[in-house]
Amino acid sequence: MRWNGWGDPAKAKDLPLAVRTLLPLLLGRTRRPHEPVALVDVVVSPSALTPEDLEALGSVVGPDHVDVTHEARVRHGGGRSTPDLLRRRAAEQRVPDAVLRPGTHDEVAAALRVAAELGIAVIPFGGGTSVVGALDPDRGPHRGVVSLDLGRLSGLIALDPLSGDAVLAAGTTGPEAEELLAAQGFELGHYPQSFRYATIGGFAAARSSGQNSAGYGRFDTMVTGIRVATPTGDLELGRSPGSAAGPDLIRVFLGSEGIFGVITEVRVRVHPVPQRRILESWSIPDFATGAEALRRVAQSATGPTVIRLSDEAETAVSLAQVGKIGKVLAKGASIVTVYEGDDIEHRRSRTAEILRAVGGTSSGESDAAAWLEGRFDGPYLRDSLLDAGVFCETLETATVWSALSGLRDAVTRTIMEGFTAEAGARSSVMCHISHVYPTGASLYFTILAGVRGDQLAVWEKVKASVNDAILAAGGTISHHHAVGRDHAPWLAQEIGETGVRILSAIKRELDPRGILNPGAVIALEPVGRAD
Amino acid sequence: MRWNGWGDPAKAKDLPLAVRTLLPLLLGRTRRPHEPVALVDVVVSPSALTPEDLEALGSVVGPDHVDVTHEARVRHGGGRSTPDLLRRRAAEQRVPDAVLRPGTHDEVAAALRVAAELGIAVIPFGGGTSVVGALDPDRGPHRGVVSLDLGRLSGLIALDPLSGDAVLAAGTTGPEAEELLAAQGFELGHYPQSFRYATIGGFAAARSSGQNSAGYGRFDTMVTGIRVATPTGDLELGRSPGSAAGPDLIRVFLGSEGIFGVITEVRVRVHPVPQRRILESWSIPDFATGAEALRRVAQSATGPTVIRLSDEAETAVSLAQVGKIGKVLAKGASIVTVYEGDDIEHRRSRTAEILRAVGGTSSGESDAAAWLEGRFDGPYLRDSLLDAGVFCETLETATVWSALSGLRDAVTRTIMEGFTAEAGARSSVMCHISHVYPTGASLYFTILAGVRGDQLAVWEKVKASVNDAILAAGGTISHHHAVGRDHAPWLAQEIGETGVRILSAIKRELDPRGILNPGAVIALEPVGRAD
Repeated sequence: MRWNGWGDPAKAKDLPLAVRTLLPLLLGRTRRPHEPVALVDVVVSPSALTPEDLEALGSVVGPDHVDVTHEARVRHGGGRSTPDLLRRRAAEQRVPDAVLRPGTHDEVAAALRVAAELGIAVIPFGGGTSVVGALDPDRGPHRGVVSLDLGRLSGLIALDPLSGDAVLAAGTTGPEAEELLAAQGFELGHYPQSFRYATIGGFAAARSSGQNSAGYGRFDTMVTGIRVATPTGDLELGRSPGSAAGPDLIRVFLGSEGIFGVITEVRVRVHPVPQRRILESWSIPDFATGAEALRRVAQSATGPTVIRLSDEAETAVSLAQVGKIGKVLAKGASIVTVYEGDDIEHRRSRTAEILRAVGGTSSGESDAAAWLEGRFDGPYLRDSLLDAGVFCETLETATVWSALSGLRDAVTRTIMEGFTAEAGARSSVMCHISHVYPTGASLYFTILAGVRGDQLAVWEKVKASVNDAILAAGGTISHHHAVGRDHAPWLAQEIGETGVRILSAIKRELDPRGILNPGAVIALEPVGRAD
Repeated sequence: MRWNGWGDPAKAKDLPLAVRTLLPLLLGRTRRPHEPVALVDVVVSPSALTPEDLEALGSVVGPDHVDVTHEARVRHGGGRSTPDLLRRRAAEQRVPDAVLRPGTHDEVAAALRVAAELGIAVIPFGGGTSVVGALDPDRGPHRGVVSLDLGRLSGLIALDPLSGDAVLAAGTTGPEAEELLAAQGFELGHYPQSFRYATIGGFAAARSSGQNSAGYGRFDTMVTGIRVATPTGDLELGRSPGSAAGPDLIRVFLGSEGIFGVITEVRVRVHPVPQRRILESWSIPDFATGAEALRRVAQSATGPTVIRLSDEAETAVSLAQVGKIGKVLAKGASIVTVYEGDDIEHRRSRTAEILRAVGGTSSGESDAAAWLEGRFDGPYLRDSLLDAGVFCETLETATVWSALSGLRDAVTRTIMEGFTAEAGARSSVMCHISHVYPTGASLYFTILAGVRGDQLAVWEKVKASVNDAILAAGGTISHHHAVGRDHAPWLAQEIGETGVRILSAIKRELDPRGILNPGAVIALEPVGRAD
């Protein structure tokens, strides 16, 4: 993966002419593009680890798997949020003191015990695609920090074909997992935008939700078991698909982003590879009508595998269809539906009936096919926009159906007013719904802004206002990006002080030295902050 | 509810002649029936609470709602397991020192703070239908114990019809909840066997699963939010149907059985009252074939609202159909299916196709209708059997499909061998599957035994062997009855010592004095036990 952007450098593409023409009209003057720094030229602090540290860590994971090279350290310096990418364009960068690459569960467990003894912080690292600062090399109160790269924990450990249950090593990437499962006739069906790079352990640790969530559920609901290493003991959880044997402790680790322990194996529900697929796109008069249609579909359980609604702005610039960016395809809003697996004609027909009843018009399969084709490519576009000096970022939330429209308005208004107030900048906000539930739905916002000054500083202020606005309007601080360090200061408003006390109590029990991902999820007290 | 048995005394019925004839053939000689003690004659210890205690508690919940009458104390002495009922036939009984009946969330919270200050244990009490000892008046290391009856916290607090989301007070019973929702056109659809008496808060605290779980999910999956009072702070959890804002802390309280706090309100997903229903029963060659059919139905998501498989023994004595007890209805095993709501012909037709494909034969709707009619009446039958001197109890577990048959065999063998070894007694074990998931299913056992000696002592030994056998065969210690005190000693084998440490850490944080339901879920160290 490109160290300071997204994905395969060979796939990066220049902005289409239409977009370059459109942007000044939309955003006014944008920032003068500047040349990103080359990886070898990044200035970093010398590793804080002593030879004794390296020897102790090497004795556990093997000396070859303690990496203090410049490249490894820089590549593990953070995730893939826009602030992460902006920071990677700077001359000086914060990076971990070393990268550890354990090869087994036991090596992970031993590495955590040794790091706790040495007083070195550990940042678990899967695919490196966090967009909430979960991978910042924050040492907290400790004297050093290592990135624990799980890439060597890869593979399909077990498959129970009768039960449709598979155990995957935590460092297995999305494509690796699907390839291994497909060889046995099965699919996991979890396709977040980060699919090509993110890992099974990361999906679990961050409570990921994939584009097929309408059909196969959030990652939370796919997980049937986990194996976890902590500095003070291991866990193997999930004996049965239905259990009342006390609280479901799997859920303590889903969303824990490495602050309690390191997930080393994940047991997941899988299904036979779907043999058939129907794609269908729809035009719908406006976002509100589309949201009403999605609500009825979700509450009637008509069974689309994918259903997503792009608002008027997103439909117009067709951001949902990266290949066609800039072509105005349709007036109004648009819906993409996909049906996979059994009984798809019936599911399509019941869903279509609802969409037609609210005023939708089928536009055939080509737009849905274009979305499917380009659905993992959004982040490449962001790189091109950043290269062109345009600020571009995404954020997401969710709420109940009755509050959805108010939440969307509040977020949109706060973003636009924020850029005006903080930077006198024009911005454009697009929105889609891509995850639906019987009681509510997610909202995903794509933001472009013509910020000419310090984009990072401006965005931090705007984003803070948006977080406040989300909570005030009844939304969750994150639907599927998780908390990391970026949302941590807002978590207490969502789960209450007593909720934060529960998380802290679990952390103290499992990680009494506090070496695991300090400052993620549970904000460090300012005094404890070592940056 | 009958204080020493189940339900409405007017509904109790004598065993049918056919059963009385059958029992000696099945079980040999049974115990001579003995006369249960009358409530007024039960001998209990004097209340350990001082006038100062009563005044302090009364100042919080109102003096009229601190009840130290003999009847109230005896009625709150435990749950409704067979051991509970056998203990209620004894002359001396363990009961709480008082019953508190708070009327609001704030009164619950204040009562917990006062009890913590006074050093008095608190046993939260909903419908009183626990069958795992969760309501034992165990004072732990404290000088007294009160039952906290949530009956006054009743009602529909809010309904969001657009989102299909309703807030119910924790003490609302199943029928009360459905009546209140039905008046607005909605249904919760949670029908465990305890439905008529159990409460919304109890369903949440015990991770209940209802007979319509194939259609509407376990209670876990219905809960969208909770409000909890703890001795050290309140929680309001569940802002959004999909969230990645850290671990889902709702799940910390589902299954916590009152050891962390008292659930005072539950937000649940509701659906429009179904307008149509199809019932269909099936004969199936044997249990194994039936289980294979249920697996295919669950993995193909064909959409029955209810699907349950009775094994050959249960089918034969027709325990599933209380009204017809004793009539041998069919050879082989049998399946009941129910379809409610939208699109039911299609769902029925897809399900039927699978059942026919494995060799099932539709037997029309009458057996399914009889099951539906009698589905809450099983416990009345147990009372009659106990009155007749026959030991009768149920237990349940769950596992993945591939381990289901082995688990059933292990449990059945352990029960029968156990009764032989411990009491030279013959026993009869029936089994059904009533909850299915894509990756596995529950097993529910009904046990009759001709134990002539101390039924309680014999059962404690047999049950201990069964718990060991369940864990050895890959099952969960409970699918929907929960942990209580009866399963607590086995919990560490299921979730590991590290799992128990997590629960203990949460408890220490929220309930540092340890007043809440001491000994439930997390077993007390023997030294701390105050009985």
